[in-house]
Amino acid sequence: MKAKVHVMLKQGVLDPQGEAVRHALAALGFQGVGGVRQGKVIELDLAETDAKRAETQVRAMCEKLLANTVIESYAIELA
Amino acid sequence: MKAKVHVMLKQGVLDPQGEAVRHALAALGFQGVGGVRQGKVIELDLAETDAKRAETQVRAMCEKLLANTVIESYAIELA
Repeated sequence: MKAKVHVMLKQGVLDPQGEAVRHALAALGFQGVGGVRQGKVIELDLAETDAKRAETQVRAMCEKLLANTVIESYAIELA
Repeated sequence: MKAKVHVMLKQGVLDPQGEAVRHALAALGFQGVGGVRQGKVIELDLAETDAKRAETQVRAMCEKLLANTVIESYAIELA
């Protein structure tokens, strides 16, 4: 089973990477770009085949390692 | 209009970040985790309201700045 985890900085947390991208896009002449936020995606190949158990496992991984839940939120997608 | 860009290393390109995550998960006791790949997501707020033109614009951003197309592939999602 495959899992995709999206980790983004929470709203209100300063995102310097996103700001850098926004400035670079403006410098390259791209207009009409408002906010830019940058996050990460982690794709996992899991041996687990039960969707419910896989989600529980991935949620534990997020809480323990993949996301810093103080400043980041995460979303799990199973396929 | 909002756009989400996913940038991942192409298949076959070594992904040291993903490998580090895989090792860390194993060290934390998570079993049954095969491959791990890490990429980035960039969320853009665009002034453009036409989906077709927005896609063209975002594609140009990817080619010029957001992705290194030699080693990375990208996917665009508009919402």
